[in-house]
Amino acid sequence: MSPRAKARGGIDLGGTKIQTVIVGARSQVIGAARTETPHEGGPAAIAAAMADCLREAASGAGYETSELIGIGVGSPGEVDDRKGTVAGARNLSEWIEPYPLRNELKKALGAPVHIGNDVQVATTGEFELGAAKPYKSVLGVFWGTGVGGGIVLDGHDWLGRGAAGEIGHMVVKKGGAKCPCGNRGCMEAYAGRAAMEAEARRRHDKGEKTDLFKLMKHKGKDRLTSSVWGKALHHEDKLATDLLERAVDALGAGIASAVNLLDVEAVILGGGLGIRFGDELGPAIEKRMNESLFDHDNPPDFHVAALGDLGGAIGAALLAKS
Amino acid sequence: MSPRAKARGGIDLGGTKIQTVIVGARSQVIGAARTETPHEGGPAAIAAAMADCLREAASGAGYETSELIGIGVGSPGEVDDRKGTVAGARNLSEWIEPYPLRNELKKALGAPVHIGNDVQVATTGEFELGAAKPYKSVLGVFWGTGVGGGIVLDGHDWLGRGAAGEIGHMVVKKGGAKCPCGNRGCMEAYAGRAAMEAEARRRHDKGEKTDLFKLMKHKGKDRLTSSVWGKALHHEDKLATDLLERAVDALGAGIASAVNLLDVEAVILGGGLGIRFGDELGPAIEKRMNESLFDHDNPPDFHVAALGDLGGAIGAALLAKS
Repeated sequence: MSPRAKARGGIDLGGTKIQTVIVGARSQVIGAARTETPHEGGPAAIAAAMADCLREAASGAGYETSELIGIGVGSPGEVDDRKGTVAGARNLSEWIEPYPLRNELKKALGAPVHIGNDVQVATTGEFELGAAKPYKSVLGVFWGTGVGGGIVLDGHDWLGRGAAGEIGHMVVKKGGAKCPCGNRGCMEAYAGRAAMEAEARRRHDKGEKTDLFKLMKHKGKDRLTSSVWGKALHHEDKLATDLLERAVDALGAGIASAVNLLDVEAVILGGGLGIRFGDELGPAIEKRMNESLFDHDNPPDFHVAALGDLGGAIGAALLAKS
Repeated sequence: MSPRAKARGGIDLGGTKIQTVIVGARSQVIGAARTETPHEGGPAAIAAAMADCLREAASGAGYETSELIGIGVGSPGEVDDRKGTVAGARNLSEWIEPYPLRNELKKALGAPVHIGNDVQVATTGEFELGAAKPYKSVLGVFWGTGVGGGIVLDGHDWLGRGAAGEIGHMVVKKGGAKCPCGNRGCMEAYAGRAAMEAEARRRHDKGEKTDLFKLMKHKGKDRLTSSVWGKALHHEDKLATDLLERAVDALGAGIASAVNLLDVEAVILGGGLGIRFGDELGPAIEKRMNESLFDHDNPPDFHVAALGDLGGAIGAALLAKS
């Protein structure tokens, strides 16, 4: 492939990390970079980090960002594609009011920018290019800092009035644990990385033993990243194991609820934790889902996202398809 | 209207009652009858009761059933429209294996018969003729012996692989109460009339005071029908009030879960208990739903089914529309 062939950029903006890719005409990855999401400085600092990270990926692929035919962004929060703004991204620093992300990135990068919902573009990525290719009706479950859902029905994204797919805020235990969203008993209150970290701190402060925070410091992190959880699980850390089992239980129950309602052909598990623990915990999540299915004889297929860590960014690049 | 104008029949087969209607060309009701669903004798006894009940409605409207241009049936369980069979109707007597309901009714009534899923036809009825007319995307919640759901998205029924809409089996409390379906923590385990009755008996046997069973006998019933629950609520019976509040809590949480996932424009509450308690408890269910919505600023509209007790049968008659 000549470095001057048509290329596109994709940016996956997460609560913990920013992942960027450069893809070629067949959506093959020709460059990639990642960085931590700044957790202070608000939208301007985050947009600057996104631009830097895409520049790095482009440079690796031998491109200037201004040569890209388009750049797609998968963002959390409320995306207004018409206005090019993102608002209410609660897992990001000071990002409540609408921020003109499209224009700021366009200015910084010199190419057209398209913005979509993070989990919906990741679901579309799996649907067009990944584990969901054989199906027409799919539920994507993105297990990371929060828990998001993407829905494809009969080959079309289902967005509702614009806010569909909040599988993380399905109630799996009425009156249960407080969720970062303020409600009680949401799936995310048990399974989201942020909620799991808060619960681990609470129990640690109360005197429960755990190596989670030692491992965190050892890795030079200031949050319990998926790799910290992975390390703790392999050390058979009791608190980490308990909280991951609790997450599996909530994910299985919530996914079963969604399947009982929608009866999709397949469930795709993605997201930072979903990819990291897909092999180890995916089968347990599927088993727990099966327990709560109404029709035990006809479960949906269950796959871990095939595009892996890059799936969100590759899916975002599809937004820029010419 | 001349008695010889084109008329259709509709049969709503429920776990507690069979409701039939005769409707004219504009789906206006010109005859109606209802009877209790036989709870022994299996599918043959139930089909015979359905035929008798439709004959009674037809007779009241001045028709022989053989003059009807078609008869629609809304049935619980697994409906196979191609084969004309119904199987696995767990709330009905001995109805597990596929039973050739279409042919049996056709033989008994002398008119073409169409079979659909009970809650889906009731949702379609509300969508075409009732409270859901102004909307394109609707969730119908049918609160009766069980709790069923019907889904209309962008104007089309969403059936999934044939089993969508099982809102009653969304998990609202993981590890919670045993549901008639065998799973734990389903919405129906708290809100279904059958499950509420089982819980009332359990608590009564353990010594909790209640007039529910006295009221049942006084009304000549052998089950806690919606009118028995209504009477007990008005007598401020503590056990009945507690169990209805528990049902409201589960309904609100489960409906919110479905709305967080699908972001529909409107929720329609129907079913025997939904109609009976729509005015009294509908606002409490809506309030409880709002508490668990992810987007508190943009709740769906919430209505009680406008076609009332006859909605299921009127919706079924739409299946026979020429």
